[in-house]
Amino acid sequence: MTLRTDTPTWITNAWYVAAWDAEVDSTPLARTICGMPIMLYRKLDRSVVAMRDACPHRLLPLSMGIREGDSIRCKYHGLKLGPDGVAEEMPLKADKVNRSICAETFAVHERHRFVWIWVGDKALADPALIPDLWPCSDPAWAFDGGYYKVEADYRLMIDNLMDLTHETHVHSGSIGQPELMEAPIETVASGDAVEVRRWMPGVNPPPFWRGALRADGPVDRWQVCRFLPPSAVMIDVGVAPVGAGATIERHDQGVRGMVIDVMTPESETSHHYFWGMARNFDIDDAGFTARFRAQQGGVFAEDMVILEAQQRAITANPDLRLQAYRIDEGGTRARALIARAIRSAQLPGDA
Amino acid sequence: MTLRTDTPTWITNAWYVAAWDAEVDSTPLARTICGMPIMLYRKLDRSVVAMRDACPHRLLPLSMGIREGDSIRCKYHGLKLGPDGVAEEMPLKADKVNRSICAETFAVHERHRFVWIWVGDKALADPALIPDLWPCSDPAWAFDGGYYKVEADYRLMIDNLMDLTHETHVHSGSIGQPELMEAPIETVASGDAVEVRRWMPGVNPPPFWRGALRADGPVDRWQVCRFLPPSAVMIDVGVAPVGAGATIERHDQGVRGMVIDVMTPESETSHHYFWGMARNFDIDDAGFTARFRAQQGGVFAEDMVILEAQQRAITANPDLRLQAYRIDEGGTRARALIARAIRSAQLPGDA
Amino acid sequence: MTLRTDTPTWITNAWYVAAWDAEVDSTPLARTICGMPIMLYRKLDRSVVAMRDACPHRLLPLSMGIREGDSIRCKYHGLKLGPDGVAEEMPLKADKVNRSICAETFAVHERHRFVWIWVGDKALADPALIPDLWPCSDPAWAFDGGYYKVEADYRLMIDNLMDLTHETHVHSGSIGQPELMEAPIETVASGDAVEVRRWMPGVNPPPFWRGALRADGPVDRWQVCRFLPPSAVMIDVGVAPVGAGATIERHDQGVRGMVIDVMTPESETSHHYFWGMARNFDIDDAGFTARFRAQQGGVFAEDMVILEAQQRAITANPDLRLQAYRIDEGGTRARALIARAIRSAQLPGDA
Repeated sequence: MTLRTDTPTWITNAWYVAAWDAEVDSTPLARTICGMPIMLYRKLDRSVVAMRDACPHRLLPLSMGIREGDSIRCKYHGLKLGPDGVAEEMPLKADKVNRSICAETFAVHERHRFVWIWVGDKALADPALIPDLWPCSDPAWAFDGGYYKVEADYRLMIDNLMDLTHETHVHSGSIGQPELMEAPIETVASGDAVEVRRWMPGVNPPPFWRGALRADGPVDRWQVCRFLPPSAVMIDVGVAPVGAGATIERHDQGVRGMVIDVMTPESETSHHYFWGMARNFDIDDAGFTARFRAQQGGVFAEDMVILEAQQRAITANPDLRLQAYRIDEGGTRARALIARAIRSAQLPGDA
Repeated sequence: MTLRTDTPTWITNAWYVAAWDAEVDSTPLARTICGMPIMLYRKLDRSVVAMRDACPHRLLPLSMGIREGDSIRCKYHGLKLGPDGVAEEMPLKADKVNRSICAETFAVHERHRFVWIWVGDKALADPALIPDLWPCSDPAWAFDGGYYKVEADYRLMIDNLMDLTHETHVHSGSIGQPELMEAPIETVASGDAVEVRRWMPGVNPPPFWRGALRADGPVDRWQVCRFLPPSAVMIDVGVAPVGAGATIERHDQGVRGMVIDVMTPESETSHHYFWGMARNFDIDDAGFTARFRAQQGGVFAEDMVILEAQQRAITANPDLRLQAYRIDEGGTRARALIARAIRSAQLPGDA
Repeated sequence: MTLRTDTPTWITNAWYVAAWDAEVDSTPLARTICGMPIMLYRKLDRSVVAMRDACPHRLLPLSMGIREGDSIRCKYHGLKLGPDGVAEEMPLKADKVNRSICAETFAVHERHRFVWIWVGDKALADPALIPDLWPCSDPAWAFDGGYYKVEADYRLMIDNLMDLTHETHVHSGSIGQPELMEAPIETVASGDAVEVRRWMPGVNPPPFWRGALRADGPVDRWQVCRFLPPSAVMIDVGVAPVGAGATIERHDQGVRGMVIDVMTPESETSHHYFWGMARNFDIDDAGFTARFRAQQGGVFAEDMVILEAQQRAITANPDLRLQAYRIDEGGTRARALIARAIRSAQLPGDA
């Protein structure tokens, strides 16, 4: 669980998703993030506390403790810690409180339906650095999704999502469409993001998009995978009627979905996977939201099977290395951004 | 199972409980003690044999073997070893016995309802060094108990038992009583033992003790946790009517129970836990004995949950250390006795 | 699974059984052989392909892939490899094929009902070096058997099979017969094989052999265990009427069975166990074949229990070493052959 090597595979000074907003409530949630056992709970004012999941006294997980007001009382000896992690009551009530006793706390920030955490240097935890997953919280969009724990290096999921070609094979039984393979792909790296783009002008839309558009006839179609450090991928997909003026850069003329994927390292070989989709059509149709979430969960479970097998194969074939072909350019550039940030020990663009 | 590091966490030259007396019978019992795979069985005269649980021939566990008279015959090739571990018959009956073939045997001694074993230097195995758990075998006392395998360093259990404050939190649903927390605690270390004492004069007895005393009215109440190296804790609890003359040092005037806990290391992170209670009242009431044993097993299972979570947290948080507060003085002094004995490579008081 | 140490415990340049012929079909079979993840499948012409079970692109096991003609297409990105392991189609069909992309393939050869594989230097993979398990494919003999995965060093199985004495103890409930122990055993080592022989002239045959012979009366009986590097054991068993002229060297006068055992290392502590029996009597009796296979599977499962316990004991008692007595001479000589071949990095007799 807490494999922390000298050559980390993740950026430390960065915001990661710790949980969906709905996962964190009054009762503590235990989750290991970047190798660090952490527990999260909400205070009475609903703001979120993130604390090392080990009592400073005898290390019992604080997530086993009892909530009292905004504080947590350890289940073993009753040491009571405030939401700032500082001791408020000793195991013996009569004992003078030693306020140097405290559990480490972490900067958290709630945005875009997620609880974000910063496990690195707290002084650098600027909420402005949170990846801009705007479709998750834009009132003109509907958003929902789910969570999977994946037994694979989080970068294998980034590779997967920044590659638009695996769908044909991994998802042959669900969303794979061979004709997608014929459209050219372009990879564009800006300072702190990477995009893989596919533009398909004047094509017949598949049933899903025809239904979303509520119209027949040829469309311009796009797929844009955007990697945002430290480990988010947003995939902009949709169609617009031919002649409506959509371009690969700007395309709000038709119907649009944003597939949201955020990966948070648990260990070197496992991660937390938060996935979902935002859409700008039929946004009040709760039935659509629920059906789409179920379908998407099925598709991402197909990826999970692949990635976990890939991780086991990486371990079982220590003499072999991952190779990058043309289709892997997006993932390769995303990994390069991560590696550069790890080396410079700061977020890309933050120099 | 057999993690043996260069810095042991246990005293090697000491008596440990290998098993309850009733656990050892004609059929071998396999148990790893201080990292050493061992098997135990009784001879026809009921004395106990403890032998390395590996045939000297091809290492098959001897505990899989067949008992023949006082000897054991390996299940693989039939090498027959006497209770002294020495070969009595070769795999081919006709072959001359090579009496230099032998399995390591260990000094054992049965006392106080337990089978004790000495895994260190056999020449030092003096039965006089067996911890004096006299209430387990005193005819004026009734005694029974049970066994748990606990996936935690045995010293975490010593910490637990030498601390009278965790009851309120760990056992809040069973025996925890907040009012206990108000009585002062005193820690006393003599040469080879440590005591944590609580004396509560003139209090109202809880129902359990009122029932034991068969009387109403105020009592003097005590709790004395006594650590005996290498890893036993006896907790002397009871009440006496006010004015009967009971003191924290001597208190046979009322009713008295001795909670018996003996921990035997299996590995650095697991131990065998032998627990029970002796009492000097209602000693012929077998129903009381059985009910109390069941209740005590439930309470100690609550501790087991805590300790195993604590052990996992110690492993998951390698940068954190156990801290000792005032309430931990008993455990801290017990650990100091152990560490001193490990350093001097002999039992405390044996210099 | 793929523990490969600097001091291997197996011969690398040698033929090992990868699978029963019937186990390999169009759909890939995944099996780790000598620490190497490998997958096997049949081409349309039924010849067998053995390939590293990792796509050269992103290492996903190729055994998860889709067969296309004689080729395999990776389930992840669709890289298509020919049966020679060389790329035939890139993930994007339009991309020029880079024929330097390839998965390692291994020499395979089908003989004696088994698929043999050579994981070492392919240039040395001469089919003439395949151990001569002639009874498995001789039309005058009937042969069938089964497969077990055993969590023990393959050499422990060789030890087991080259020793005719363990039957009394391990198989006391099935085939063990104490009277066998009284017949003398002889061990004979030639250049590249080891034999353990037992000759029992003029004895009463047990029911099994009386039934096979379809005759009463005294017989000459034999048991000859022959080790063939790198890891096969054939056990020649049978009876002939007294006076028919059978000798320990030549004995085709009566009824004969050849127990076939081939062990293939998976890791240092696990192996694939292919077992069966060929016989030269009642060879068209399919019911006999099926009943005998079931019985033999039961007997070898008894060995498996012993060997896995032995392997765990070897790990749990790192200070103890296997000892060799007189009965172990066959296994000891077989191990010496293996060790010599490992040292000289070639098959025995191949100098």
